[in-house]
Amino acid sequence: MSNRALSLGEAARLVSGTLHHGRDEDTICGVNTLAGSDASQASFLANRKYAGDFEASAAGVILLAEGTLPDTQRPVIRVGDPYLAFAMLQRHFHPDVQASGERHQSATIDPSAVLAADVDVGAQAVIGARVRIAAGSRIAAGCVVEDEAQIGEDCLLHARSVIGAGCVLGNRVIIQSGAVIGSDGFGYAWSGREHLKIPQVGRVVLENDVEIGANSCIDRGAIGDTIIRTGVKLDNLIQIGHNVDIGAFSIMASQVGISGSTTVGQGCQFGGQVGTAGHIKIGDGCKIAAKSGVAGDLQAGGTYAGIPVMPHRVWLKVSALLPRLPGLWSKLTSLGFK
Amino acid sequence: MSNRALSLGEAARLVSGTLHHGRDEDTICGVNTLAGSDASQASFLANRKYAGDFEASAAGVILLAEGTLPDTQRPVIRVGDPYLAFAMLQRHFHPDVQASGERHQSATIDPSAVLAADVDVGAQAVIGARVRIAAGSRIAAGCVVEDEAQIGEDCLLHARSVIGAGCVLGNRVIIQSGAVIGSDGFGYAWSGREHLKIPQVGRVVLENDVEIGANSCIDRGAIGDTIIRTGVKLDNLIQIGHNVDIGAFSIMASQVGISGSTTVGQGCQFGGQVGTAGHIKIGDGCKIAAKSGVAGDLQAGGTYAGIPVMPHRVWLKVSALLPRLPGLWSKLTSLGFK
Amino acid sequence: MSNRALSLGEAARLVSGTLHHGRDEDTICGVNTLAGSDASQASFLANRKYAGDFEASAAGVILLAEGTLPDTQRPVIRVGDPYLAFAMLQRHFHPDVQASGERHQSATIDPSAVLAADVDVGAQAVIGARVRIAAGSRIAAGCVVEDEAQIGEDCLLHARSVIGAGCVLGNRVIIQSGAVIGSDGFGYAWSGREHLKIPQVGRVVLENDVEIGANSCIDRGAIGDTIIRTGVKLDNLIQIGHNVDIGAFSIMASQVGISGSTTVGQGCQFGGQVGTAGHIKIGDGCKIAAKSGVAGDLQAGGTYAGIPVMPHRVWLKVSALLPRLPGLWSKLTSLGFK
Repeated sequence: MSNRALSLGEAARLVSGTLHHGRDEDTICGVNTLAGSDASQASFLANRKYAGDFEASAAGVILLAEGTLPDTQRPVIRVGDPYLAFAMLQRHFHPDVQASGERHQSATIDPSAVLAADVDVGAQAVIGARVRIAAGSRIAAGCVVEDEAQIGEDCLLHARSVIGAGCVLGNRVIIQSGAVIGSDGFGYAWSGREHLKIPQVGRVVLENDVEIGANSCIDRGAIGDTIIRTGVKLDNLIQIGHNVDIGAFSIMASQVGISGSTTVGQGCQFGGQVGTAGHIKIGDGCKIAAKSGVAGDLQAGGTYAGIPVMPHRVWLKVSALLPRLPGLWSKLTSLGFK
Repeated sequence: MSNRALSLGEAARLVSGTLHHGRDEDTICGVNTLAGSDASQASFLANRKYAGDFEASAAGVILLAEGTLPDTQRPVIRVGDPYLAFAMLQRHFHPDVQASGERHQSATIDPSAVLAADVDVGAQAVIGARVRIAAGSRIAAGCVVEDEAQIGEDCLLHARSVIGAGCVLGNRVIIQSGAVIGSDGFGYAWSGREHLKIPQVGRVVLENDVEIGANSCIDRGAIGDTIIRTGVKLDNLIQIGHNVDIGAFSIMASQVGISGSTTVGQGCQFGGQVGTAGHIKIGDGCKIAAKSGVAGDLQAGGTYAGIPVMPHRVWLKVSALLPRLPGLWSKLTSLGFK
Repeated sequence: MSNRALSLGEAARLVSGTLHHGRDEDTICGVNTLAGSDASQASFLANRKYAGDFEASAAGVILLAEGTLPDTQRPVIRVGDPYLAFAMLQRHFHPDVQASGERHQSATIDPSAVLAADVDVGAQAVIGARVRIAAGSRIAAGCVVEDEAQIGEDCLLHARSVIGAGCVLGNRVIIQSGAVIGSDGFGYAWSGREHLKIPQVGRVVLENDVEIGANSCIDRGAIGDTIIRTGVKLDNLIQIGHNVDIGAFSIMASQVGISGSTTVGQGCQFGGQVGTAGHIKIGDGCKIAAKSGVAGDLQAGGTYAGIPVMPHRVWLKVSALLPRLPGLWSKLTSLGFK
């Protein structure tokens, strides 16, 4: 990786920061944690929980926010957002692998599929009829891309992911291992004798720069499409129901479940294990704490928590009072309440 | 799909409804949402949230409940249950694909497996020793059917699903992509030095008309079988522990977890992310709200919610009061309680 | 299985118990539940819920704790822990399958991979470049072991599991079907315009005797490793974030989610659907009830429940009072509170 080594001066320019107490020409060839780094590596202080590791760190340089630890005399690059600067350095040192047009001989590629020349297809992968895959995309071992699916440029499908029939991926989409894009939505009508399955004939559309976590499931629309918009990032083991629409740049931690026909706005942030009802609207920019349950529409810009959700500031008070409920009860009981 | 077009008269008869304000001989060739449909399509009004789309819809005919919008002058087919009627029309327009006996050359089929002549086996699929698969079943790409598993008639295994050794599927069972039928149950005994694994030697039995969602896991019995009875529908990412027994026609939304040896009655409905303890009995016809936690037996026919569950009507009051707890506390504190 | 039949005397010695009311030379050839066993089988009473099945059981002998049912006259083997004794008998009757060096012709094994002579590789499996697999390990059908992964001795990878590039498994590790070891951690930095993906360059290390459940996901470290230590057992559909460290012999039920950089101590027990925040420390020996939410550090040895967690004994009182909250409220309201 030495051919991607950076001088401290180059590193500071790359992250739009300023170098203090360090020599421009010293070099780094990687990034590591404060505790784990050596003199050839940069590190960063982004979470104050790790501030105690700062002085003892052997890092060659440390990415640090403007106002933090103003008196330090060690080499630092001061930046607006150390975590973002860390990301930028890390991307420099670990660039994406480029597609090379390798098609493993054990892969099954339908003759009617149209793949750009440089598309990689891994061992035991299956590419169905009339599939289209654009330039730069890589399909890892064991993936199944079903008939008529379309995959844009520079996508990366990790091992054993499934793209269902007719589903559409934009450019630079990443699918982690085992994810299922285009499973049937959960739709039945009770006939009086059985749950009659309703054919799920819509698609899943993942727009540009979407990432879907390992073993997550995105159901196809019952009619029409399930849409995950530009730049959305979904963690592992997430369930997205049929005809859900998730707004651009929203981000959800693992094990979230969004029920069918719900609309999530742009720029939302969901903690892990959040669940929502179906057929509701969650406004732009909502933040929902881990484990919350959302039963109805939520106004844009709010921060929510609880089951069912309430404003987060209320939830903080409620959750602090819950363990004190038995004491209150005893007191009231002693006064004759019951 | 035009060869399956229906006249409005035929459509009304198919759904046991009556046509109003429409011409018997006009035709439809599909179903769509109120907002998305055109004159060649039927639509339906089943959820009053979408009533506002009714008048503006371009649909050729709309499925409508008997008493709803009594004064409308547009073509409607009045039925007892518009959602069921929609399901019936949709099934007419999108009939199941029939098995054709195609065996992809890249599939691995053990010579001792016995497959009916018309069974389809997709690319890269694996059919183990002494497996039996009955007529009309389709095994999609990348599935693994382990040794001695038995699959009934007209089953559909979507891509990359796994049927574990010795497990049994009835007729018309559908397995969505990535589901695992027959993983080991979670059974260990603490030896004083380690968690000693208990061999899990039972099977999973899925009776007729069961559907299992994408990436769901059904553990095999420790001893004896895990049983999912006739007509049960399980959504994605559901966990069913070893030796669970789920009664006929019960239905569970995604991310539910049922711990080992629990018995669920017939006709139950579980919302998403419900969890239950092990070794309990949940009576017939129970409805359990999303995110609930069930720690003990539940009487048949009840509707429950909360962690731990309480009657749903109580939970509605409790959950409405929780956000008001801080106000009550302030008041009581100001009166000298603490 | 008759060649592994045991006399009652042998069985008693195997489990370090004492035989009462039975003949040393009578034989058993399996283990079953109290209700399901016949005279050729042993059974066990470990959960008092099943005590009612004891007398009616047809079992040839029953494993029973020292003090339980002191007056019974039927053949029993008295032991300290009947469940552990059951596990030991069951392991006798169902020994592990031994690896035999079978390499299915449809598997893809990179020429640079180094596999011990007796390693089994199932149909359609993929073994990447420079992978190392030690003696006695079995790789089932459809697994993907990515480049440079290392697998120790006597491991068992069930169908369609994925071991990501560079990840390391110790000895006797079991991976259930569909599990993903080494998915990318969920790491992004907001650039002002998009969530910039941070390359996840660490590994997953699973130490000896770890078991990972079906469709569970263990993310690789962002920098450095995610570590699951000796003897940890994780159930199905569990999410382990990047750089998590789980202490030896901890055990977690299904659908648990552990957020990134959290440290879990040794010998912890988590119920199903528990979730934890990231960057926290959970002490040794903590027990956390199902569905709990852990937002901060937890002291060693505690038993916790609730969202957010509180001491379990407090939670028991709180949860008992919650359904009575509406009644209290009515009373207070009638007295002029509101």
